[in-house]
Amino acid sequence: MTQKGSLDDFLATAVEAAKQAGEIIRSGFYGAKQVELKGEVDLVTETDKKCEQLIFTFLKEQYPDHKFIGEETAAAGGNIELTNEPTWIVDPIDGTFNFVHGYPLVCVSIGLTIGKIATVGVVYNPIMDELFTAIRGKGAFLNGKPIRVSSQDKLVKSLLAAEVIASHEKSIVDASTNQINSLLFKVRSLRMSGSCAIDLCWIACGRLDLFYLVGFGGPWDVAAGAVIVSEAGGLIFDPSGKDFDITAQRVAASNPLLKEAFVGALQQSE
Amino acid sequence: MTQKGSLDDFLATAVEAAKQAGEIIRSGFYGAKQVELKGEVDLVTETDKKCEQLIFTFLKEQYPDHKFIGEETAAAGGNIELTNEPTWIVDPIDGTFNFVHGYPLVCVSIGLTIGKIATVGVVYNPIMDELFTAIRGKGAFLNGKPIRVSSQDKLVKSLLAAEVIASHEKSIVDASTNQINSLLFKVRSLRMSGSCAIDLCWIACGRLDLFYLVGFGGPWDVAAGAVIVSEAGGLIFDPSGKDFDITAQRVAASNPLLKEAFVGALQQSE
Repeated sequence: MTQKGSLDDFLATAVEAAKQAGEIIRSGFYGAKQVELKGEVDLVTETDKKCEQLIFTFLKEQYPDHKFIGEETAAAGGNIELTNEPTWIVDPIDGTFNFVHGYPLVCVSIGLTIGKIATVGVVYNPIMDELFTAIRGKGAFLNGKPIRVSSQDKLVKSLLAAEVIASHEKSIVDASTNQINSLLFKVRSLRMSGSCAIDLCWIACGRLDLFYLVGFGGPWDVAAGAVIVSEAGGLIFDPSGKDFDITAQRVAASNPLLKEAFVGALQQSE
Repeated sequence: MTQKGSLDDFLATAVEAAKQAGEIIRSGFYGAKQVELKGEVDLVTETDKKCEQLIFTFLKEQYPDHKFIGEETAAAGGNIELTNEPTWIVDPIDGTFNFVHGYPLVCVSIGLTIGKIATVGVVYNPIMDELFTAIRGKGAFLNGKPIRVSSQDKLVKSLLAAEVIASHEKSIVDASTNQINSLLFKVRSLRMSGSCAIDLCWIACGRLDLFYLVGFGGPWDVAAGAVIVSEAGGLIFDPSGKDFDITAQRVAASNPLLKEAFVGALQQSE
């Protein structure tokens, strides 16, 4: 039995919430395309809202004194201020476009910050049935097995994950592809998954060597992934090389051997 | 019982070969990173060779009069000439970089052409345990269930899969990212998986709406996927809009509603 209010207890509760939300996601996955037909521009699906409500209700029952930040709640004008108090930061479906299109890289992301530090992280991909978990100081796991970042030390042999932004704004698209263009001279290959939380977890288990993303939705995209990467022996940092700020909508991650070269390449790419 | 020498028999044999090769891939998957440490530039792993040998031996036992084209055999200077005779076209591991890095989008691709027309196709992702199959005129299936391309009819709402090429050659990288830049003004989002055969299958089951790739390795990347896309109600064509040529190292795929707009966008992007 884990002690009520311990980090192990927080993790167990978050896993249970993620699995329950995962069930909803999985059952809606193949019917998701119907949502598109409604013509909802922002693709905020009913599943998304249902999952956030489920997760928040479940966590609030256990920890009524904790704070809560969620993508859906934030979109509706709810709390996004991060304080020192234990705060659950939740993305009910990370990879919303993937969910809508039936592309299997979708996940539930549940992070807990204490003193603004990412302390417990759960990322669950219900389509691939992959559960990533971490508690600060206690290692990171995929389906219960310890995971570790890659041992790659050469940029030119590294697999990079990033995103380019589809838009009608020329300056946004150009900046996005110019940066990719610069990086392609220096790495082995590029992947784009459409899910920030999954990319962070795949850095953590060594499937990817390098990841960066700027201008994503909010702390819910990175809160869980940050602790999972760190506990897998990886580094999470600002693309400039400075300290990671969970509220800054800027993130990069790699193993420790690649960080310096990666930051250098990112700086040259701007 | 399927009749020996029937298309159903060919498919059943190809599925059995793909599953056996898939076992080898799965068992090597988490140890794959060791290959990298040997410093093999072309990443042709022992698993790759072992799988091709297994598949060819298995198929040749059943069909000694058929012709065979394989990625590994071709790389070693073997046959790549496509004739009208029944010809098995095999990629033992499509997504070799993914395999080496432990990125889960890898597959076995086994296609059979008769009269140069892709007639039987099997694509098996042993990590996700997804088996895509098709026989010309008999539909396409994922793990035995019928699949269908998406019904999306708007380019701006479409999910595009493509690849950019990491290289030291400026002209190659520039052409690659310039094309992506142009397309990003017209689609919803972009994915890069690192596996041509998987992208074709994901077009077939509607996870993706649009896919194009130019300059890939050879017919083994597309032989199986071509029939799977067609049998799922999709179109496979040259990025110029002309007829698909299995030997041309140029491919595009979409549902029928999007082809014209997609070809237009591709032409404007060159």
